[in-house]
Amino acid sequence: MSCPFKGLKKGITRRGFLTAAGSLIAAAGVGYGTRSVQTLLDESKGLNLPGAGHASEPFWGAHQGGIVTSPQTHTYFAAFDVVSEKREDIVKLLQAWTDAAAKMTAGKPAEGDSGDVTGLYPARLTLTFGFGAGLFTKEGKDRYGLAHLRPEAFVDLPQFNGDQMIAEKTGGDISVQACADDSQIAFHAVRQLARLATDTAHIRWTQAGFIAKPDGENTPRNLQGFKDGTESPARERAKENNPAAAAKNLRKGLDEVVWVDGEGPAWMQGGSYLVARRIRMALEHWDTVKVEFQEQVIGRHKDTGAPLSGKNEFDTLDLDATDKDGNPLIAENAHVRLASSMTNDGAQILRRGYSYNDGVNYVAERWPPWRQGLEYDAGLLFLAYQRDPRTGFIKIFDKMSKFDALNQFVTHTGGGMFVCPGGVREGEFIGQRLFQAA
Amino acid sequence: MSCPFKGLKKGITRRGFLTAAGSLIAAAGVGYGTRSVQTLLDESKGLNLPGAGHASEPFWGAHQGGIVTSPQTHTYFAAFDVVSEKREDIVKLLQAWTDAAAKMTAGKPAEGDSGDVTGLYPARLTLTFGFGAGLFTKEGKDRYGLAHLRPEAFVDLPQFNGDQMIAEKTGGDISVQACADDSQIAFHAVRQLARLATDTAHIRWTQAGFIAKPDGENTPRNLQGFKDGTESPARERAKENNPAAAAKNLRKGLDEVVWVDGEGPAWMQGGSYLVARRIRMALEHWDTVKVEFQEQVIGRHKDTGAPLSGKNEFDTLDLDATDKDGNPLIAENAHVRLASSMTNDGAQILRRGYSYNDGVNYVAERWPPWRQGLEYDAGLLFLAYQRDPRTGFIKIFDKMSKFDALNQFVTHTGGGMFVCPGGVREGEFIGQRLFQAA
Repeated sequence: MSCPFKGLKKGITRRGFLTAAGSLIAAAGVGYGTRSVQTLLDESKGLNLPGAGHASEPFWGAHQGGIVTSPQTHTYFAAFDVVSEKREDIVKLLQAWTDAAAKMTAGKPAEGDSGDVTGLYPARLTLTFGFGAGLFTKEGKDRYGLAHLRPEAFVDLPQFNGDQMIAEKTGGDISVQACADDSQIAFHAVRQLARLATDTAHIRWTQAGFIAKPDGENTPRNLQGFKDGTESPARERAKENNPAAAAKNLRKGLDEVVWVDGEGPAWMQGGSYLVARRIRMALEHWDTVKVEFQEQVIGRHKDTGAPLSGKNEFDTLDLDATDKDGNPLIAENAHVRLASSMTNDGAQILRRGYSYNDGVNYVAERWPPWRQGLEYDAGLLFLAYQRDPRTGFIKIFDKMSKFDALNQFVTHTGGGMFVCPGGVREGEFIGQRLFQAA
Repeated sequence: MSCPFKGLKKGITRRGFLTAAGSLIAAAGVGYGTRSVQTLLDESKGLNLPGAGHASEPFWGAHQGGIVTSPQTHTYFAAFDVVSEKREDIVKLLQAWTDAAAKMTAGKPAEGDSGDVTGLYPARLTLTFGFGAGLFTKEGKDRYGLAHLRPEAFVDLPQFNGDQMIAEKTGGDISVQACADDSQIAFHAVRQLARLATDTAHIRWTQAGFIAKPDGENTPRNLQGFKDGTESPARERAKENNPAAAAKNLRKGLDEVVWVDGEGPAWMQGGSYLVARRIRMALEHWDTVKVEFQEQVIGRHKDTGAPLSGKNEFDTLDLDATDKDGNPLIAENAHVRLASSMTNDGAQILRRGYSYNDGVNYVAERWPPWRQGLEYDAGLLFLAYQRDPRTGFIKIFDKMSKFDALNQFVTHTGGGMFVCPGGVREGEFIGQRLFQAA
């Protein structure tokens, strides 16, 4: 197959900026590898987390689980449409879901649980709930008297360049992100919630995902074979010998990037905005492209994960580095350059990506040679948390959607944006402060 | 939801037969739990298999890997259509695939490998190749001069009662079953084979699958929450204190049930017939049904896996056992009764099932109340090996497809039958003896 990018490197002349770091796919915002922010925080408190399996994650707290929680190996993401027009039905649903979530994350069966995961551990299950725009207004209608409470930051996602959103895999009034170290546990949890939702909410779309665990590496590899999640607060911590100081650094980073504070409404304190994107990778195409070219597209070495400007995975991107001919080592349209906070006025997001693999699908490519036929329906369930999507995902992806060399190999086919309220205190239900405010 | 089976138990009057054991979904033929036939054979030789990850499975041998190999936690199954009309293209393809398979199963990159699994271990990868009917004749045409070599036992699968086969997920000229203890490894292997097949064969359909590993249990649980693979040669072995005698028993069982011998053509010696069925489970429906009813449908207890006629998982089915009113403890249409070799003239198959989870799909149910809407596109990738499909799957499933109570919760939506030649000796290519015979 002839490669549409043969002249890529030569065509690059502009210089990058050198300020900080962040990314969407192969690099990271305040991203993290398998050794996570939460792990580091726990370690700094002297806590020694048990391994997967019997371990459980807390449900109650100031923040919802599943956001800074050390990434479990599997996810099952579900978006629900609320079909009841009655506000009290949603409240009842959220109460039932809170009860079920508290039980299941502790490894106990939900109310009426059909016991499908007997003997399968809690497996560090987390359930993270978000509200879509449709909960506030749908087709111009304020169904539940919540319209006036929609946060200013909760804008509609624009139609980005290249978006090929499939309606059946996009949007939804409530999102549930189930993560666990066992795929069956994550799926089971959503099934129980769906069962409890019978007449109030129906599943609109779902996506299962997984992380591959490489041997002796902290950073997972995505289906394109590149390390995904290299840029991480773990780097900063590595520079700190004092765990307390490292934890303080981490907390500060999360406060800046992830958690909504005084700028948001009261019910959003400690919450975050989730952007989910179902990104199909044209792996059939990718697999026929030479590794050297793949590395130019990404801006990193495939084996080590090091930036093309460096030698080791955790070397800082040097966007000004050039070869002997004066061409940038990290191409002008390389993924890591465009995703970096250095080229986005410091914008950062907390990524939590999972690979997905749904077999093969018929597709019509939107790039030369406009091939039609069967392609893998596989890629990345991109999940990213941020304090404000306007200065987070939207800011970063607007430019990437136009210029990223990786766009030749990926298509955004679904997803949505959801506002995740703060954590739940025992006795409360998820989103209680939103409904009490209304 | 009202349950269409409320009267199930009372409607049962006929008695079962008591001879041996075998099954399709929740029970087993010569099936096996996570402790497999191969493990037992190896243990009997004093071999101590290493854990997953760095461990690899042999590629060369009298039989193909992935048939009696201890089930890896993940599979990626692919069916290819051969699009070249030239016989030498297929031979070249099979030679390239043999080379790639030998390398990848040893944890090495395939020719031109894009290195997407760097650091991800061999993960016990096996690749099992099979030939579909289309390789022998397609639309009445003997494309490759192989028609006269089609084995007598390789009949076409009939249209079973209730089959809802989707053309895009059914059939294929060549099958590749990739199994590994890491989903990315299994998928990567098929991607490399697909890349090498470029102009000769195209992917027709694929299916990813996984096994959930319960804590302290040898038998995995399927998505309906029932233990799947209880009936196992491990039971016989447990009765033997002498490992050599146990291994002899196992080998004898495999020779009887799995491996083609003198009755088949020369190129099929040591081979087997694979029946693959993509079985969607109506989990949305299943999850609303009481556990007691689920147990009547299956014929086993959900928590322990014990037959309703017994107390422990490995108790032999007692199909004559009745309650105080004279009703059979294992219902007349219970899954385990109809799947059992006791009710199938001793017919047995070697099952190798994987759960699959492809999100949600629009479906129109074919049972009361004929509900339409979104349902989980999840269930079982049923894979079964046998010496002769006429006396194996076809014999067993013909009756099950008509009477099994479980049919109310499952729909067969795809699959195929493939003849898997014997193993490959170093220097040979897969299927070489077939092409040499032609």
